[in-house]
Amino acid sequence: MIIDGRKIGQRIIRQAQDKLSQTERPLRLAAVLVGPSTSSGQALKKFIELKKKAAEEIGVEFRAYEFPENISNNQLREELNKIVKVKTTHGVIIELPLPSHLNTQYLLNTIPEEKDVDVLSEKSQGKFFTRLDSAKRAGRSKILPPSVETVKQIFEEYNVELKGKTAAVFGYGLLVGKQVSHWLVNQGATVSIITEFTKEPEKISKEADIIISGVGKPGLITPNMIKEGATVIDFGRDVDFEEVSKKADLITPPTGGVGPIVVAAVLKNLVDLQNGQ
Amino acid sequence: MIIDGRKIGQRIIRQAQDKLSQTERPLRLAAVLVGPSTSSGQALKKFIELKKKAAEEIGVEFRAYEFPENISNNQLREELNKIVKVKTTHGVIIELPLPSHLNTQYLLNTIPEEKDVDVLSEKSQGKFFTRLDSAKRAGRSKILPPSVETVKQIFEEYNVELKGKTAAVFGYGLLVGKQVSHWLVNQGATVSIITEFTKEPEKISKEADIIISGVGKPGLITPNMIKEGATVIDFGRDVDFEEVSKKADLITPPTGGVGPIVVAAVLKNLVDLQNGQ
Repeated sequence: MIIDGRKIGQRIIRQAQDKLSQTERPLRLAAVLVGPSTSSGQALKKFIELKKKAAEEIGVEFRAYEFPENISNNQLREELNKIVKVKTTHGVIIELPLPSHLNTQYLLNTIPEEKDVDVLSEKSQGKFFTRLDSAKRAGRSKILPPSVETVKQIFEEYNVELKGKTAAVFGYGLLVGKQVSHWLVNQGATVSIITEFTKEPEKISKEADIIISGVGKPGLITPNMIKEGATVIDFGRDVDFEEVSKKADLITPPTGGVGPIVVAAVLKNLVDLQNGQ
Repeated sequence: MIIDGRKIGQRIIRQAQDKLSQTERPLRLAAVLVGPSTSSGQALKKFIELKKKAAEEIGVEFRAYEFPENISNNQLREELNKIVKVKTTHGVIIELPLPSHLNTQYLLNTIPEEKDVDVLSEKSQGKFFTRLDSAKRAGRSKILPPSVETVKQIFEEYNVELKGKTAAVFGYGLLVGKQVSHWLVNQGATVSIITEFTKEPEKISKEADIIISGVGKPGLITPNMIKEGATVIDFGRDVDFEEVSKKADLITPPTGGVGPIVVAAVLKNLVDLQNGQ
């Protein structure tokens, strides 16, 4: 079956809208883009457009800030410090990847926790990586990183039980692999993390009930690397969809797959952070 | 070969002593123990004794605080808030596990980062789980959790290259599995995390070049579960040493294995935090 990301995304957005309508408080989401005219920037712009569209659909104001590719670390830090302090802005996204001369984590740390819809500052990540040890009583923020929320929603929608399953996670990046693998282990999955240094990735992935990929290398995952009947969730457009979909039981398509769910998860986080959840 | 934890521990302690002698500043380490008369408390007491001995060996004052098993979460939080504020105390350890009615992470969060020698508060963990993305420029604390420092020191001592190796990590606890697995991935190892829900652990562990175990279940790891020539590092006394040592190339013994290195790593962290490293 092909995972219907649009349907899941719409459901999440409707739920966010419902919560929002109970507050009457106008919300604003801001996105920061560095180097809009680079090829990476062009791709990110399309993603920003989708976030803008979804935000406005539920009455959330959206503001995009663009900075030139050659902005210095300190300059950008200063600009971010201004943006995150705007009282009428309730969520701030820094579009990644940033140009390589910039210190990504240092810049992400400018976002205060209550506006960190992507769960990427050091503080938010600290909370995420410890919350499962303490969720019971600490009463703290329960938002999940958008990639994790996406995986969670897909498994809920299709009633996939995680406990006792094996999962192969391709890539260990900031946005997908690191966070998703941690969450999967906590759900009772046996997780193997495959990186560029893995010598025989197919040996591991062929045994996995679940494949999560967040590398960004088209064609990386071919049918011979997966088990018949596997669930395949592709964040990095790494999967040869045409061929792999013949073998997978459940798979995200290249369009209308994880994208709409990730966008919806960002809006869910914006609303939930405001509602203190 | 049997890993000589005492030798490695002594080397680390000598290095810490050298750094310490350059400052002339007296340091103090505090350890908090809840329920000293329980069986778990008795075991922890022995571990505290080893820390005390190592601390005093290099001129670090050591203070142990004991609280009854039935202390409430709020009471302990208040006591900790006092202990961590003592200016002449430079490092604070909360001995784990705590009795189950206490909220471990909430209590660990009382320890300020500059005294968190175990790297266990939400803030310290946030730093640890993001530092490898940002270590280059952020200029922040570089101490490692003692279990990670232990693994690192063992691999350095015996010149084991991690890049491209496969590792099976048994357990995903706060003190060992979660932190060590993250670090191993960042060193270029392909990591599989095995938990109580893993259906066929031996299938994974038999392929692994490196086994790290932190479960706390004697006899869990038997020779049929490991590959000939593997490296086995046992934090949880999980390994059937007698038999597994015949197959492993490099293995920690039940006594004089990881213990002295973990203790030394705590002292290293105490000294490094004071030196702003």
